[in-house]
Amino acid sequence: MSDTPSASDLTALRDIVRQFAEERDWQQFHTPKNLAMALSVEVAELVEHFQWLNTGEDHELDDKQRTGIRHELADSLVYLIRLADRVNVDLYDAVIEKMQLNREKYPVEKVKGKSRKYTEY
Amino acid sequence: MSDTPSASDLTALRDIVRQFAEERDWQQFHTPKNLAMALSVEVAELVEHFQWLNTGEDHELDDKQRTGIRHELADSLVYLIRLADRVNVDLYDAVIEKMQLNREKYPVEKVKGKSRKYTEY
Amino acid sequence: MSDTPSASDLTALRDIVRQFAEERDWQQFHTPKNLAMALSVEVAELVEHFQWLNTGEDHELDDKQRTGIRHELADSLVYLIRLADRVNVDLYDAVIEKMQLNREKYPVEKVKGKSRKYTEY
Amino acid sequence: MSDTPSASDLTALRDIVRQFAEERDWQQFHTPKNLAMALSVEVAELVEHFQWLNTGEDHELDDKQRTGIRHELADSLVYLIRLADRVNVDLYDAVIEKMQLNREKYPVEKVKGKSRKYTEY
Repeated sequence: MSDTPSASDLTALRDIVRQFAEERDWQQFHTPKNLAMALSVEVAELVEHFQWLNTGEDHELDDKQRTGIRHELADSLVYLIRLADRVNVDLYDAVIEKMQLNREKYPVEKVKGKSRKYTEY
Repeated sequence: MSDTPSASDLTALRDIVRQFAEERDWQQFHTPKNLAMALSVEVAELVEHFQWLNTGEDHELDDKQRTGIRHELADSLVYLIRLADRVNVDLYDAVIEKMQLNREKYPVEKVKGKSRKYTEY
Repeated sequence: MSDTPSASDLTALRDIVRQFAEERDWQQFHTPKNLAMALSVEVAELVEHFQWLNTGEDHELDDKQRTGIRHELADSLVYLIRLADRVNVDLYDAVIEKMQLNREKYPVEKVKGKSRKYTEY
Repeated sequence: MSDTPSASDLTALRDIVRQFAEERDWQQFHTPKNLAMALSVEVAELVEHFQWLNTGEDHELDDKQRTGIRHELADSLVYLIRLADRVNVDLYDAVIEKMQLNREKYPVEKVKGKSRKYTEY
């Protein structure tokens, strides 16, 4: 991806997030360890929107919740992209690679429709 | 992004993850609430790699840890993309929008080099 | 509690956990920051048991899951007690104090039976 | 512990937390799954206090942070106790049992002073 930034929105977002941190001289706080913690905190703010709901499907949400979920999804991706940047992981390539491993780990014929298999793997 | 999938690797990954779930008939388990929980669990597996390290910089890691971090970053993004898909959020647009709010929330002149400001905002 | 350790199982557990760490010379790794991360990782292992279940009520669990939940609850409490010990917080006193604040924050007449109130507070 | 409630502050706190929920008719929201999510959210609020700090030792904290950490520790224990109550786990017995397993898993002679062993186990 890195050699075709024009075709990659993940690379574009990486550069936007990197510039945001550099402009504020926040690289000093952005160690991989600190970014992993910050990511977990943002994801928990996302989880908080769903904790007392039945399923979180659209009909259970009001506009304030929809906007909050949208913003927490964005903040979570910002920290995920920033952490990947700091540890030199190309997220697109990493997902393509991991999804192949997931296909081997969860063969359709063994796990289709089974959450038990899902959790026991 | 959704109208220009060829230019969007986030959209390409969304489609790969969506197909993976559909082939296994896992949509029934992929409620927004369950996906938010699963995302938080994957992110914790990422955090686990850093919990006893000083900063998590590359020189503190061995190849086994680097691979683990790469895979957990991928799994985290997979669930983040899947959750965004289920709640109809375009992640690229959401991040562009949220980063503008972040620029207003953390003006360079007020927060430059200050983690205290960072945490107190 | 601290003045009546014999009547306090939280104090007894604090001493057991403290000794476990000291025997292994792990105090060096047990900074408040690292312990907070470790606690979040253990809690995620607890969450993992419930992520694909409907409610997590007993009839949805098998013995392997019940044992796993019991062990993750224990590990979570171990790190919570260890962190409280490192930051000099008496957990019993802290909960008594916080529950009084919670009573004032969530008056029965305003929040009875309402999850919306619950989440909006 | 359950046969000597008067000597158990964990049992006393369990009863206080149980009454708090019953008075508000919140048992309907307190499924094990929802409580596990709520616990993870409270723990993340605790983690948030430490994410940009070096170690979180006392000299890095101000009184506002000390109070915040105290309150988040309390809220985390409240949900941990509530969840244990809902899944019928005696936390004192569970920790005593798990610490014995931990002693066998991390023998002093093998892990003393080693975080690497710690993380690799």
